[in-house]
Amino acid sequence: MTKRKIETCFSPALFRPDEHLNSVVIIIDILRASSAICTAFANGAVSILPVADVSEAREYKAQGYLVAAERDGFILDFADFGNSPFNFTRERVEGKTIVYSTTNGTGIINLASSSSIIAIGSFLNLSALAEWISRQEKDALLFCAGWKNRFNLEDTVCAGAIAAKLMAGKHFTTSCDSTIAAMDLWSLAAPDLPGYIDKAAQRTRLRDKKLDDCIEFCLTLDFTKRIPVMKNGFLVDNIL
Amino acid sequence: MTKRKIETCFSPALFRPDEHLNSVVIIIDILRASSAICTAFANGAVSILPVADVSEAREYKAQGYLVAAERDGFILDFADFGNSPFNFTRERVEGKTIVYSTTNGTGIINLASSSSIIAIGSFLNLSALAEWISRQEKDALLFCAGWKNRFNLEDTVCAGAIAAKLMAGKHFTTSCDSTIAAMDLWSLAAPDLPGYIDKAAQRTRLRDKKLDDCIEFCLTLDFTKRIPVMKNGFLVDNIL
Repeated sequence: MTKRKIETCFSPALFRPDEHLNSVVIIIDILRASSAICTAFANGAVSILPVADVSEAREYKAQGYLVAAERDGFILDFADFGNSPFNFTRERVEGKTIVYSTTNGTGIINLASSSSIIAIGSFLNLSALAEWISRQEKDALLFCAGWKNRFNLEDTVCAGAIAAKLMAGKHFTTSCDSTIAAMDLWSLAAPDLPGYIDKAAQRTRLRDKKLDDCIEFCLTLDFTKRIPVMKNGFLVDNIL
Repeated sequence: MTKRKIETCFSPALFRPDEHLNSVVIIIDILRASSAICTAFANGAVSILPVADVSEAREYKAQGYLVAAERDGFILDFADFGNSPFNFTRERVEGKTIVYSTTNGTGIINLASSSSIIAIGSFLNLSALAEWISRQEKDALLFCAGWKNRFNLEDTVCAGAIAAKLMAGKHFTTSCDSTIAAMDLWSLAAPDLPGYIDKAAQRTRLRDKKLDDCIEFCLTLDFTKRIPVMKNGFLVDNIL
């Protein structure tokens, strides 16, 4: 049986949509969008509508939707809440559709929209996600959101953790240097993940804005088995 | 004293010229352009004229210049030789100006041309290069050539080795995730550099084309103290 390929993309600036039309694309933006999305589904959200544009998010708010929206870590004035996973409590999100606009995440979902399947990855759904990817019978692209088109450490280490899980099975292979690097960085980070991520620039940025209370939570492995998957423009819950 | 910054760029697609106008930019393309250039100066070349265009290289050949030119690892028919460091022997290059066109390297030199100082880095001139960078009183950008705009392992590990040398002194600091990742990968690679680089995709590509005879040499630390530096469109020798 031909093994399926794992590739990793470190930044939207490096993404080549044409090469991944038939792949499962996993979007990784762990501080904090992809962790927040996984938490929303863990807490019973029905669906999430990602919107790139602030004015679009504002219109949905006027229509009565629950809106999560931020730019550079700050909640927009019209929004119900921002980007911390701690905002997506069961009380707020259970049974609801959430309109969600973030600095990075939404744009990347749009960028990957020509791919076969798009799902959201984080440490919070790590093992369930790897198992789910294995069952898709497709190549996998681990797409790190990065920060303002740059490489970042935290998304890379998470991609490495997912790749290592996939490579531990017998279905996948990789000849992608980014994937090899990500797995190696994960091997260094795994023994003390919070200690390792403490060196990341985003860790410092969030600390400076006093938005770092959720980081330890975002580094929790296997908090949920929910797999947020894009369907008809919405993220919906694909429980494993 | 304010510490100087180290940043690392993993691919030409991630390079932002405006942010590095006043930096020392080190171009790293170890398999094989930057290793070949360091070898040429170690063997007494006077200068190297990098040209991006094949037709331009052909014209220089017609004018009687020594021309090194390749595309995707293969020597162009009109050229004297290609991109292996083993081609740049003392017999061929001593006292000469070489016109040099490569798949990756030349384009990157042009891309970085607005920066204050451009030099060529490889494992071959590692320690001398780090010492030379320290004396420039500028921020440093370690610019990995990558492969077709992708991240690659071998240039990243070399960038990590240079960054680690700089960070061991007291003049530099970094808050760049790419630099941190590169140093961490170097720490994994250092105990067995050839063994580590064996996983790189370029290693496999060169092996498939039977162009891998020079890899062990390209991974030699401190073969030379020459620092090839751009001056008026030419690379010239800035011996430490």
